[in-house]
Formats: sequence, structure tokens, C-alpha cells
Amino acid sequence: MTKKKPITAAVIIIGNEILSGRTQDTNLNYLAKKLDALGIIVSEALVISDDKTGIIDGVNRLRAEYDYVFTTGGIGPTHDDITSAAVAEAFGVNLEENTDAAELLKASYQRQDLNKAQMKMACLPKNARLIDNRLTGAPGFQMENVFVMAGVPDIMRTMFSSIIDRLQNDKPMITVNIETDIGESVFANELAELQQQYTDINIGSYPSFRDNNIRVNLTLRSTDEQRLQKLQKKLIELITRLGGAILQSHPG
Amino acid sequence: MTKKKPITAAVIIIGNEILSGRTQDTNLNYLAKKLDALGIIVSEALVISDDKTGIIDGVNRLRAEYDYVFTTGGIGPTHDDITSAAVAEAFGVNLEENTDAAELLKASYQRQDLNKAQMKMACLPKNARLIDNRLTGAPGFQMENVFVMAGVPDIMRTMFSSIIDRLQNDKPMITVNIETDIGESVFANELAELQQQYTDINIGSYPSFRDNNIRVNLTLRSTDEQRLQKLQKKLIELITRLGGAILQSHPG
Repeated sequence: MTKKKPITAAVIIIGNEILSGRTQDTNLNYLAKKLDALGIIVSEALVISDDKTGIIDGVNRLRAEYDYVFTTGGIGPTHDDITSAAVAEAFGVNLEENTDAAELLKASYQRQDLNKAQMKMACLPKNARLIDNRLTGAPGFQMENVFVMAGVPDIMRTMFSSIIDRLQNDKPMITVNIETDIGESVFANELAELQQQYTDINIGSYPSFRDNNIRVNLTLRSTDEQRLQKLQKKLIELITRLGGAILQSHPG
Repeated sequence: MTKKKPITAAVIIIGNEILSGRTQDTNLNYLAKKLDALGIIVSEALVISDDKTGIIDGVNRLRAEYDYVFTTGGIGPTHDDITSAAVAEAFGVNLEENTDAAELLKASYQRQDLNKAQMKMACLPKNARLIDNRLTGAPGFQMENVFVMAGVPDIMRTMFSSIIDRLQNDKPMITVNIETDIGESVFANELAELQQQYTDINIGSYPSFRDNNIRVNLTLRSTDEQRLQKLQKKLIELITRLGGAILQSHPG
């Protein structure tokens, strides 16, 4: 059996406000969940400032490395919105008035004579394919395998929903969760041995604290439901044998 | 007047759970705020999976480029905790038992004979300087300008608090916020002109939606309070002239 190559993606979060701590990013988590459900593996994410060179370098590195790149931020009308210009430069094409985008903006602003700032949002890389924005009109755009979306979460989400049918998808990963009350170091060695037996399943071990008690959540991920069930059973037996309680086990 | 070189940093968030969407990262935002208050500029962040090559490449690229690198995640006892081994390899040194770390772990587990998994947390890059963990004992560590911390937010925070006095700091940025109810495209051109006059101040324009109304938050950042006050006054005049309400203006 030859293993099929997984479909991969990278996310680029663009904006000084994320790196200064002003804004807690939620776009990466949203995209990660949505892409995971489509069987697309987010392999890397980059958070960068509103800096042209940084955007160009990031886009060019990641679009060569992964099947898809999704960017958020920097496509509005103000001086700090430089993503469209940077993406044009990354692809070596001109930034020019996109007539379809201009029509969408005219309809959205309900005026025929857009001002310079509004026209800026219609200036996109040559041959960009538009991404619908059902919230405020100003579109995102696609260049080859790069999807350029807004940073405002509500707008990003409506844009993402409109590009899902452009993405090649795959069998989604199934996730099994097991929560216990014993520390990681109690079961770590046996867990490592099980990971070596089940190389097709990704086993993650995530400790957390609740009311000053340690909890560990084991996460098993694979596309093979039967293998997951088998490993889930083995892990429950292991934890029980080591004196741990099974606080949760999903699905099960 | 020669401009002083700013102190810069990068953050590396390590963990499959962030890229699969299982976990919403909050460590970047915490570190960004704390470093911003110290006058250290976070210039870039990377979110990568528990993959050795990715960690090595990320650490080596960023430690050469920025004054400080802060990593979170992957220093626990389980098989998916590979950050310490990767950082040792990034620095070209051996991973070896750190006797101070072993003592801390023995005290924390209240036993002299640590098991293999517990000992794993004492195996650090040669000559690593420890980072205190007042919550669970298992330390983080520093290698030159790279600070390696836990991924569990509470533990990361206690670790960060213990390294603050190792960091060179600078005059922190002062932030001025102005909120208005007019769209960005109404003032974008005049704002771009002001940005060209005030190149020492970073002006960000952030739209948001509240109860279906557009709000725009203008953020002015600089270390020079007087210049900020001057620009704040000019912007309030501009917005008022363009028919916008000033919903908030801080400080002021």
C-alpha cells in the first residue's frame, strides 16, 4: 500500500496589531479547524507585520512549499493595507484596477465615483480571481494557490466559506480524546512504545490544570476509524492498569 | 539625531494541537503584550508542528535575525515533546543530563529515582541555563538568545516572569487609541498624508463590526508622548471635519 501524499496548507496572519498584543488572533484557529475538517493539513503558520518585504518573502516561501496558502489582513483602504501590492510583487505581476472588483465596490458604496481609498481596494494583482465578501463588498482574491482574505474575523469567515468549493479536499482526520488524572510521566514510556506500533496515528499528550489538579488529554488522530478504536481500547487499558481514572473518552 | 536600533524578538509556537485547531493559542498574545511593555518589538511569530527539522530551521533562522527568540511547547515527558532535542541540534551541542534540572525534578516529584520519562525533562542542551518553573518544577531553559518555555499557558507565564530580568529592555511604546464611526475610506487619503508627516509614529487603522455598525479604531504608537499628542489632536480635528464622531480617545 503506497501512502497518499496529504494535502497541505500554510496560513499567514498579517498585521502589526497581532504582534504588538493589541489583538488576540482567532483567524488561525478558525482556518485550522475548517481545513482540518476538509482533510487539509495546516503544516505551518506565520504571523508577520505590515511590511512588504516580509509578506513577499513569506508568500513566496510558503506557496512553493504547500498546496495552499491562506493570508488574512491588510486588504483594506488605508496606508497600512499593503497585502495586495505585496502579493502582486510576490507573483511578479502588476497591481491594476480589477473591473469586477470596482463594480462590486460601486454597488457596495452605492456610488459610481469611488474615491482614491475605495479604488485602492479594487487594485489587485493582474489576473486575480475574486473572493466574495458578502459582508462589506470589498473582495478578497486568489492568485494560483494563494488565497488573500481580510483580517476582520467576520469578513474572513464569509470569504472562506465562498472558496471552499475551490479547494481539493481529502478524507478528514478523525480525532479520539481520552482524558485522565495521572501525570504524563507515569505513562510516557508505554505511550512512546504504542506510538512506535501505531505510526499511522498521531498521538498527542496535552497536560492542563484545573482547580490545581493535573489533567492529561490524549489525542489520537488518523483517518482510519478501526485502528483508532483499537488504540483507544489499548490506551484505556494502559491508563487503568497504571491506576489512572478515565475522565473522558470520545467517541466511545 | 541618529535613530537607536530597536530591540527585536520572535516567538515560535510549537505544537500540532495549535495547527489542527484543537487549541486556540494564547501564548503569542501574552508574550507580545509583555514584550511590548518592555520596549521589545515582536517582529515575527512562527507556528510549527512537533517536527524536529521544522524546529531546528525556525530556531536557527530567527535567532540569527532577532535579538531574542521565545519558544513555547514541547518540553514535557512524552514522545511528542521534542523541542529540547531540536534546540540542542540547532546549537550543535549534545543533549545531556542537567544535574540542576534533575535536582529540581527530584524535589518536585519527591523521589530520588526518577523514571525514564521524568529524566527526559532533565536532559537539556549542554550548558543550558535553567528557567524556573514555580508551578510544576520541570524547568525551561535558555541557550544564548533563545528562551525555551512550556506550552501550558500557566507554566509559560510563570517561566516568562522569571526571565524578565535577563532581558535588555527599552523605552516602551506608548499607544493612543481613537475610535470613530466613519468608514476607513472616508479618511484614508488624509490619514496616509499624516503618516508621511509623522514617520516616527506607527499609525494602524482597524475596522470592526458591532451591532452591524462599522467602527474604526485608529492606533498611534511611538515612544514620544508629545508627538503622539500632536497627532492625536490633528486626527480628532480631521475626523470631526469629515463628519465623524469621536467615540473614544485614549489617553485624553
